[in-house]
Amino acid sequence: MRQAIHTLLLETKGRGLVEFTHQVLRWLASEKFSAGLLTIYCRHTSASLLIQENADPDVQTDMQNYFERLAPESDVYIHSAEGPDDMPAHLRAALTQTSLSIPIMDGRPALGTWQGIYLFEHRARPHRREIVLHAIGE
Amino acid sequence: MRQAIHTLLLETKGRGLVEFTHQVLRWLASEKFSAGLLTIYCRHTSASLLIQENADPDVQTDMQNYFERLAPESDVYIHSAEGPDDMPAHLRAALTQTSLSIPIMDGRPALGTWQGIYLFEHRARPHRREIVLHAIGE
Amino acid sequence: MRQAIHTLLLETKGRGLVEFTHQVLRWLASEKFSAGLLTIYCRHTSASLLIQENADPDVQTDMQNYFERLAPESDVYIHSAEGPDDMPAHLRAALTQTSLSIPIMDGRPALGTWQGIYLFEHRARPHRREIVLHAIGE
Repeated sequence: MRQAIHTLLLETKGRGLVEFTHQVLRWLASEKFSAGLLTIYCRHTSASLLIQENADPDVQTDMQNYFERLAPESDVYIHSAEGPDDMPAHLRAALTQTSLSIPIMDGRPALGTWQGIYLFEHRARPHRREIVLHAIGE
Repeated sequence: MRQAIHTLLLETKGRGLVEFTHQVLRWLASEKFSAGLLTIYCRHTSASLLIQENADPDVQTDMQNYFERLAPESDVYIHSAEGPDDMPAHLRAALTQTSLSIPIMDGRPALGTWQGIYLFEHRARPHRREIVLHAIGE
Repeated sequence: MRQAIHTLLLETKGRGLVEFTHQVLRWLASEKFSAGLLTIYCRHTSASLLIQENADPDVQTDMQNYFERLAPESDVYIHSAEGPDDMPAHLRAALTQTSLSIPIMDGRPALGTWQGIYLFEHRARPHRREIVLHAIGE
Protein backbone atom coordinates (compact mmCIF):
# COMPACT_ATOMS: atom_id res chain seq x y z
CA MET A 1 0.00 0.00 0.00
CA ARG A 2 1.36 3.44 -0.91
CA GLN A 3 0.15 7.02 -1.42
CA ALA A 4 0.82 10.05 -3.62
CA ILE A 5 -0.05 13.77 -3.30
CA HIS A 6 -0.09 16.48 -5.93
CA THR A 7 -1.24 20.12 -6.10
CA LEU A 8 -3.00 21.32 -9.27
CA LEU A 9 -3.22 25.02 -10.07
CA LEU A 10 -6.32 26.01 -12.04
CA GLU A 11 -6.90 29.44 -13.57
CA THR A 12 -10.55 30.51 -13.64
CA LYS A 13 -12.12 33.25 -15.76
CA GLY A 14 -14.61 34.33 -13.10
CA ARG A 15 -17.94 32.70 -12.25
CA GLY A 16 -18.53 29.32 -13.84
CA LEU A 17 -17.62 25.68 -14.07
CA VAL A 18 -14.13 24.60 -15.17
CA GLU A 19 -13.75 20.94 -16.02
CA PHE A 20 -10.43 19.41 -14.92
CA THR A 21 -11.15 15.68 -15.31
CA HIS A 22 -8.32 15.42 -17.81
CA GLN A 23 -5.69 16.79 -15.40
CA VAL A 24 -6.85 14.38 -12.69
CA LEU A 25 -6.74 11.38 -15.05
CA ARG A 26 -3.27 12.35 -16.33
CA TRP A 27 -1.79 12.69 -12.84
CA LEU A 28 -3.39 9.46 -11.62
CA ALA A 29 -2.15 7.55 -14.69
CA SER A 30 1.40 8.76 -13.99
CA GLU A 31 1.17 7.39 -10.44
CA LYS A 32 0.15 3.90 -11.65
CA PHE A 33 -2.32 2.83 -8.96
CA SER A 34 -4.39 -0.15 -10.06
CA ALA A 35 -6.86 0.08 -7.14
CA GLY A 36 -7.34 2.58 -4.35
CA LEU A 37 -9.01 5.80 -3.29
CA LEU A 38 -8.64 9.22 -4.92
CA THR A 39 -9.46 12.37 -2.92
CA ILE A 40 -9.82 15.82 -4.49
CA TYR A 41 -9.67 18.81 -2.16
CA CYS A 42 -10.36 22.51 -2.84
CA ARG A 43 -8.32 24.89 -0.67
CA HIS A 44 -10.81 27.78 -0.99
CA THR A 45 -14.09 28.98 0.52
CA SER A 46 -15.39 30.89 -2.52
CA ALA A 47 -14.83 28.11 -5.06
CA SER A 48 -15.90 24.48 -4.77
CA LEU A 49 -16.00 21.05 -6.41
CA LEU A 50 -18.75 19.31 -8.31
CA ILE A 51 -19.15 16.08 -10.24
CA GLN A 52 -21.61 16.68 -13.06
CA GLU A 53 -22.60 15.72 -16.58
CA ASN A 54 -19.99 16.64 -19.14
CA ALA A 55 -21.92 15.64 -22.28
CA ASP A 56 -24.04 18.77 -22.79
CA PRO A 57 -22.47 22.19 -21.98
CA ASP A 58 -25.99 23.56 -21.40
CA VAL A 59 -26.05 21.66 -18.11
CA GLN A 60 -23.18 23.82 -16.88
CA THR A 61 -24.93 27.04 -17.91
CA ASP A 62 -28.17 25.97 -16.20
CA MET A 63 -26.18 24.94 -13.12
CA GLN A 64 -24.47 28.33 -12.87
CA ASN A 65 -27.72 30.26 -13.43
CA TYR A 66 -29.47 28.17 -10.81
CA PHE A 67 -26.89 28.85 -8.09
CA GLU A 68 -26.99 32.57 -8.95
CA ARG A 69 -30.73 32.48 -8.24
CA LEU A 70 -30.40 30.26 -5.15
CA ALA A 71 -27.85 32.49 -3.39
CA PRO A 72 -28.31 35.86 -5.10
CA GLU A 73 -26.09 38.92 -4.85
CA SER A 74 -29.25 40.98 -4.32
CA ASP A 75 -29.79 39.57 -0.80
CA VAL A 76 -28.62 41.63 2.15
CA TYR A 77 -25.48 40.26 3.82
CA ILE A 78 -23.49 41.60 6.78
CA HIS A 79 -20.20 40.42 5.26
CA SER A 80 -19.84 42.71 2.24
CA ALA A 81 -16.40 44.29 2.60
CA GLU A 82 -14.93 42.07 -0.13
CA GLY A 83 -17.62 42.99 -2.68
CA PRO A 84 -21.22 41.95 -3.43
CA ASP A 85 -20.12 38.64 -4.99
CA ASP A 86 -18.19 37.46 -1.91
CA MET A 87 -20.87 36.25 0.52
CA PRO A 88 -22.95 34.57 -2.25
CA ALA A 89 -19.68 32.83 -3.24
CA HIS A 90 -19.31 31.40 0.30
CA LEU A 91 -22.95 30.25 0.29
CA ARG A 92 -22.65 28.55 -3.10
CA ALA A 93 -19.46 26.84 -1.92
CA ALA A 94 -21.27 25.64 1.23
CA LEU A 95 -24.06 24.14 -0.92
CA THR A 96 -21.62 22.18 -3.10
CA GLN A 97 -18.40 20.29 -2.19
CA THR A 98 -15.00 21.08 -0.72
CA SER A 99 -13.83 17.48 -1.04
CA LEU A 100 -14.65 14.53 -3.29
CA SER A 101 -13.62 10.89 -2.85
CA ILE A 102 -13.59 8.50 -5.80
CA PRO A 103 -12.56 4.82 -5.70
CA ILE A 104 -9.84 3.82 -8.19
CA MET A 105 -10.65 0.68 -10.21
CA ASP A 106 -8.55 -0.78 -13.05
CA GLY A 107 -6.15 2.14 -12.77
CA ARG A 108 -8.80 4.85 -13.21
CA PRO A 109 -11.22 6.79 -10.99
CA ALA A 110 -14.59 5.00 -11.03
CA LEU A 111 -16.36 7.92 -12.75
CA GLY A 112 -19.63 7.08 -14.48
CA THR A 113 -19.93 7.41 -18.25
CA TRP A 114 -21.19 11.01 -18.15
CA GLN A 115 -19.39 12.24 -15.04
CA GLY A 116 -16.85 15.05 -15.23
CA ILE A 117 -14.94 16.67 -12.35
CA TYR A 118 -15.48 20.44 -12.12
CA LEU A 119 -14.11 23.38 -10.21
CA PHE A 120 -16.99 25.76 -9.53
CA GLU A 121 -15.65 29.33 -9.41
CA HIS A 122 -18.05 31.55 -7.49
CA ARG A 123 -16.20 34.90 -7.56
CA ALA A 124 -16.83 37.37 -10.40
CA ARG A 125 -13.14 37.93 -11.22
CA PRO A 126 -10.57 35.38 -12.46
CA HIS A 127 -8.71 33.53 -9.72
CA ARG A 128 -5.89 31.01 -9.42
CA ARG A 129 -7.20 28.04 -7.41
CA GLU A 130 -5.27 25.28 -5.64
CA ILE A 131 -6.65 21.74 -5.76
CA VAL A 132 -4.91 18.98 -3.78
CA LEU A 133 -5.06 15.43 -5.15
CA HIS A 134 -4.37 12.47 -2.88
CA ALA A 135 -4.30 8.81 -3.87
CA ILE A 136 -3.83 5.78 -1.66
CA GLY A 137 -3.83 2.15 -2.76
CA GLU A 138 -1.66 -0.23 -4.69
CA MET B 1 -3.25 -2.60 5.65
CA ARG B 2 -5.48 -3.84 2.81
CA GLN B 3 -8.42 -2.69 0.69
CA ALA B 4 -11.56 -4.06 -0.96
CA ILE B 5 -13.87 -2.76 -3.71
CA HIS B 6 -17.39 -3.78 -4.63
CA THR B 7 -20.10 -2.48 -6.97
CA LEU B 8 -23.71 -2.50 -5.77
CA LEU B 9 -26.60 -2.33 -8.26
CA LEU B 10 -29.70 -0.61 -6.92
CA GLU B 11 -33.07 -0.52 -8.69
CA THR B 12 -35.07 2.65 -8.09
CA LYS B 13 -38.79 3.19 -8.68
CA GLY B 14 -38.43 6.80 -9.83
CA ARG B 15 -38.06 9.89 -7.63
CA GLY B 16 -37.39 9.20 -3.98
CA LEU B 17 -35.02 7.91 -1.33
CA VAL B 18 -33.91 4.26 -1.32
CA GLU B 19 -32.19 3.10 1.85
CA PHE B 20 -29.30 0.69 1.26
CA THR B 21 -27.62 0.69 4.69
CA HIS B 22 -28.22 -3.04 4.97
CA GLN B 23 -26.37 -3.88 1.73
CA VAL B 24 -23.40 -1.76 2.83
CA LEU B 25 -23.27 -3.41 6.27
CA ARG B 26 -23.51 -6.88 4.77
CA TRP B 27 -20.68 -6.30 2.28
CA LEU B 28 -18.47 -4.67 4.90
CA ALA B 29 -19.08 -7.52 7.37
CA SER B 30 -18.03 -10.05 4.71
CA GLU B 31 -14.74 -8.16 4.21
CA LYS B 32 -13.90 -8.30 7.95
CA PHE B 33 -12.22 -4.94 8.51
CA SER B 34 -11.96 -4.07 12.19
CA ALA B 35 -10.89 -0.43 11.60
CA GLY B 36 -10.56 1.67 8.49
CA LEU B 37 -12.33 3.99 6.07
CA LEU B 38 -15.40 3.22 3.97
CA THR B 39 -16.15 5.29 0.86
CA ILE B 40 -19.46 5.16 -1.01
CA TYR B 41 -19.52 6.56 -4.53
CA CYS B 42 -22.48 7.21 -6.88
CA ARG B 43 -21.60 6.85 -10.58
CA HIS B 44 -24.45 9.11 -11.77
CA THR B 45 -25.27 12.80 -12.15
CA SER B 46 -29.06 12.55 -11.74
CA ALA B 47 -29.03 10.46 -8.57
CA SER B 48 -27.02 11.12 -5.41
CA LEU B 49 -26.19 9.99 -1.88
CA LEU B 50 -27.49 11.15 1.47
CA ILE B 51 -27.10 10.13 5.08
CA GLN B 52 -30.35 10.84 6.87
CA GLU B 53 -32.65 9.76 9.67
CA ASN B 54 -34.11 6.29 9.14
CA ALA B 55 -36.47 6.21 12.14
CA ASP B 56 -39.46 8.10 10.71
CA PRO B 57 -40.34 7.55 6.99
CA ASP B 58 -42.03 11.00 6.99
CA VAL B 59 -38.54 12.54 7.00
CA GLN B 60 -37.92 10.97 3.59
CA THR B 61 -41.21 12.27 2.19
CA ASP B 62 -40.52 15.79 3.50
CA MET B 63 -36.97 15.58 2.10
CA GLN B 64 -38.20 14.63 -1.36
CA ASN B 65 -40.92 17.31 -1.37
CA TYR B 66 -38.42 19.93 -0.26
CA PHE B 67 -35.97 19.21 -3.07
CA GLU B 68 -38.83 19.27 -5.59
CA ARG B 69 -39.63 22.80 -4.40
CA LEU B 70 -35.97 23.88 -4.21
CA ALA B 71 -35.12 22.85 -7.79
CA PRO B 72 -38.53 22.72 -9.49
CA GLU B 73 -39.36 21.31 -12.90
CA SER B 74 -41.35 24.48 -13.56
CA ASP B 75 -38.19 26.61 -13.88
CA VAL B 76 -36.89 27.37 -17.36
CA TYR B 77 -33.75 25.41 -18.26
CA ILE B 78 -31.71 25.39 -21.48
CA HIS B 79 -30.92 21.67 -21.10
CA SER B 80 -34.33 20.07 -21.64
CA ALA B 81 -33.78 17.49 -24.40
CA GLU B 82 -33.89 14.60 -21.91
CA GLY B 83 -37.23 15.68 -20.42
CA PRO B 84 -38.44 18.23 -17.84
CA ASP B 85 -37.17 16.12 -14.92
CA ASP B 86 -33.56 15.95 -16.16
CA MET B 87 -32.07 19.35 -15.31
CA PRO B 88 -33.79 19.50 -11.87
CA ALA B 89 -32.27 16.03 -11.30
CA HIS B 90 -28.77 17.39 -11.96
CA LEU B 91 -29.40 20.35 -9.63
CA ARG B 92 -30.70 18.15 -6.80
CA ALA B 93 -27.67 15.87 -7.25
CA ALA B 94 -25.35 18.91 -7.07
CA LEU B 95 -26.99 20.00 -3.80
CA THR B 96 -26.49 16.60 -2.15
CA GLN B 97 -23.56 14.13 -2.31
CA THR B 98 -21.77 12.09 -4.96
CA SER B 99 -19.42 10.53 -2.39
CA LEU B 100 -19.57 9.74 1.32
CA SER B 101 -16.71 8.70 3.60
CA ILE B 102 -17.38 6.90 6.88
CA PRO B 103 -14.75 5.67 9.35
CA ILE B 104 -14.94 1.97 10.25
CA MET B 105 -14.80 1.26 14.02
CA ASP B 106 -15.23 -2.14 15.70
CA GLY B 107 -15.90 -3.72 12.32
CA ARG B 108 -18.79 -1.42 11.39
CA PRO B 109 -19.23 1.99 9.74
CA ALA B 110 -19.40 4.65 12.49
CA LEU B 111 -23.02 5.58 11.67
CA GLY B 112 -24.94 7.37 14.40
CA THR B 113 -27.94 5.72 16.02
CA TRP B 114 -30.46 7.24 13.60
CA GLN B 115 -28.33 7.44 10.47
CA GLY B 116 -29.22 5.50 7.34
CA ILE B 117 -27.45 5.54 3.96
CA TYR B 118 -29.72 6.52 1.08
CA LEU B 119 -29.62 6.66 -2.68
CA PHE B 120 -31.59 9.71 -3.77
CA GLU B 121 -33.17 9.03 -7.18
CA HIS B 122 -33.97 12.32 -8.91
CA ARG B 123 -35.36 11.05 -12.25
CA ALA B 124 -39.10 10.41 -12.64
CA ARG B 125 -38.69 6.90 -14.11
CA PRO B 126 -37.14 3.81 -12.50
CA HIS B 127 -33.38 3.43 -13.04
CA ARG B 128 -30.67 0.92 -12.28
CA ARG B 129 -27.92 2.75 -10.35
CA GLU B 130 -24.31 1.72 -9.73
CA ILE B 131 -22.76 2.46 -6.34
CA VAL B 132 -19.09 1.70 -5.76
CA LEU B 133 -18.00 0.73 -2.22
CA HIS B 134 -14.34 1.00 -1.21
CA ALA B 135 -12.85 0.02 2.14
CA ILE B 136 -9.28 0.44 3.33
CA GLY B 137 -7.92 -0.51 6.72
CA GLU B 138 -7.07 -3.60 8.67
CA MET C 1 1.16 2.83 6.33
CA ARG C 2 -0.92 3.11 9.50
CA GLN C 3 -4.20 4.62 10.73
CA ALA C 4 -5.69 6.30 13.79
CA ILE C 5 -9.27 6.98 14.94
CA HIS C 6 -10.58 9.39 17.54
CA THR C 7 -14.01 10.60 18.66
CA LEU C 8 -14.44 14.29 19.53
CA LEU C 9 -17.35 15.48 21.66
CA LEU C 10 -18.54 18.99 20.87
CA GLU C 11 -21.06 20.95 22.92
CA THR C 12 -23.26 23.30 20.90
CA LYS C 13 -25.34 26.22 22.17
CA GLY C 14 -28.18 25.70 19.71
CA ARG C 15 -28.32 26.83 16.08
CA GLY C 16 -25.05 28.10 14.65
CA LEU C 17 -21.53 27.32 13.53
CA VAL C 18 -18.94 25.99 16.01
CA GLU C 19 -15.36 26.04 14.79
CA PHE C 20 -13.31 23.02 15.85
CA THR C 21 -10.24 23.36 13.60
CA HIS C 22 -8.05 23.61 16.67
CA GLN C 23 -9.20 20.28 18.13
CA VAL C 24 -8.59 18.57 14.79
CA LEU C 25 -5.10 20.05 14.44
CA ARG C 26 -4.19 19.10 17.99
CA TRP C 27 -5.28 15.47 17.59
CA LEU C 28 -3.59 15.12 14.22
CA ALA C 29 -0.34 16.61 15.57
CA SER C 30 -0.37 14.06 18.41
CA GLU C 31 -0.67 11.22 15.87
CA LYS C 32 2.40 12.43 13.92
CA PHE C 33 1.39 11.65 10.33
CA SER C 34 3.60 13.43 7.81
CA ALA C 35 1.39 12.62 4.79
CA GLY C 36 -1.98 10.95 4.44
CA LEU C 37 -5.72 11.46 4.41
CA LEU C 38 -7.87 12.90 7.20
CA THR C 39 -11.61 12.15 7.30
CA ILE C 40 -14.07 13.98 9.55
CA TYR C 41 -17.45 12.37 10.12
CA CYS C 42 -20.58 13.73 11.85
CA ARG C 43 -22.72 11.03 13.54
CA HIS C 44 -25.93 13.10 13.38
CA THR C 45 -28.71 14.00 10.95
CA SER C 46 -29.62 17.39 12.42
CA ALA C 47 -26.08 18.78 12.57
CA SER C 48 -23.50 18.78 9.79
CA LEU C 49 -19.99 19.77 8.73
CA LEU C 50 -18.75 22.74 6.75
CA ILE C 51 -15.41 24.16 5.71
CA GLN C 52 -15.73 27.91 5.58
CA GLU C 53 -13.90 31.20 6.02
CA ASN C 54 -12.74 31.78 9.57
CA ALA C 55 -11.38 35.32 9.15
CA ASP C 56 -14.62 37.33 9.47
CA PRO C 57 -17.26 36.12 11.99
CA ASP C 58 -19.91 37.91 9.89
CA VAL C 59 -19.59 35.12 7.32
CA GLN C 60 -20.86 32.66 9.92
CA THR C 61 -23.84 34.87 10.81
CA ASP C 62 -24.76 35.34 7.15
CA MET C 63 -24.35 31.58 6.59
CA GLN C 64 -26.71 30.74 9.44
CA ASN C 65 -29.29 33.34 8.38
CA TYR C 66 -29.16 32.07 4.81
CA PHE C 67 -29.87 28.46 5.75
CA GLU C 68 -32.74 29.60 7.99
CA ARG C 69 -34.29 31.28 4.93
CA LEU C 70 -33.47 28.39 2.57
CA ALA C 71 -35.13 25.70 4.73
CA PRO C 72 -37.50 27.70 6.95
CA GLU C 73 -39.39 26.51 9.99
CA SER C 74 -42.48 28.20 8.53
CA ASP C 75 -42.82 25.57 5.77
CA VAL C 76 -45.31 22.75 6.32
CA TYR C 77 -43.66 19.41 7.06
CA ILE C 78 -45.23 16.01 7.79
CA HIS C 79 -42.46 15.13 10.26
CA SER C 80 -43.10 17.57 13.11
CA ALA C 81 -43.34 15.42 16.24
CA GLU C 82 -39.88 16.46 17.42
CA GLY C 83 -40.64 20.19 17.14
CA PRO C 84 -40.77 22.82 14.39
CA ASP C 85 -36.94 23.03 14.19
CA ASP C 86 -36.44 19.30 13.52
CA MET C 87 -37.33 18.84 9.85
CA PRO C 88 -35.58 22.08 8.79
CA ALA C 89 -32.54 20.73 10.69
CA HIS C 90 -32.56 17.54 8.56
CA LEU C 91 -32.88 19.60 5.36
CA ARG C 92 -30.02 21.94 6.28
CA ALA C 93 -27.88 18.90 7.13
CA ALA C 94 -28.73 17.35 3.73
CA LEU C 95 -27.62 20.56 1.97
CA THR C 96 -24.24 20.61 3.73
CA GLN C 97 -21.84 17.76 4.63
CA THR C 98 -21.86 14.66 6.80
CA SER C 99 -18.25 13.82 5.92
CA LEU C 100 -15.17 15.78 4.87
CA SER C 101 -11.88 14.42 3.52
CA ILE C 102 -8.70 16.48 3.69
CA PRO C 103 -5.25 15.39 2.48
CA ILE C 104 -2.46 15.63 5.07
CA MET C 105 0.70 17.38 3.82
CA ASP C 106 3.79 18.24 5.89
CA GLY C 107 2.09 16.89 8.99
CA ARG C 108 -1.01 19.11 8.72
CA PRO C 109 -4.38 19.00 6.95
CA ALA C 110 -4.06 20.85 3.62
CA LEU C 111 -6.51 23.60 4.67
CA GLY C 112 -6.32 26.83 2.69
CA THR C 113 -5.24 30.04 4.43
CA TRP C 114 -8.79 31.10 5.33
CA GLN C 115 -10.38 27.69 5.80
CA GLY C 116 -11.78 26.62 9.15
CA ILE C 117 -13.59 23.37 10.02
CA TYR C 118 -17.07 23.91 11.47
CA LEU C 119 -19.81 21.90 13.07
CA PHE C 120 -23.13 23.35 11.91
CA GLU C 121 -25.73 22.84 14.66
CA HIS C 122 -29.23 22.99 13.18
CA ARG C 123 -31.36 22.32 16.28
CA ALA C 124 -32.59 25.22 18.41
CA ARG C 125 -31.43 23.73 21.72
CA PRO C 126 -27.87 22.91 22.84
CA HIS C 127 -26.66 19.41 21.94
CA ARG C 128 -23.63 17.22 22.53
CA ARG C 129 -22.37 16.07 19.12
CA GLU C 130 -20.00 13.21 18.24
CA ILE C 131 -17.47 13.74 15.47
CA VAL C 132 -15.27 10.83 14.38
CA LEU C 133 -11.77 11.63 13.08
CA HIS C 134 -9.90 9.08 10.97
CA ALA C 135 -6.36 9.43 9.60
CA ILE C 136 -4.48 7.07 7.35
CA GLY C 137 -0.99 7.55 5.98
CA GLU C 138 2.59 7.51 7.20
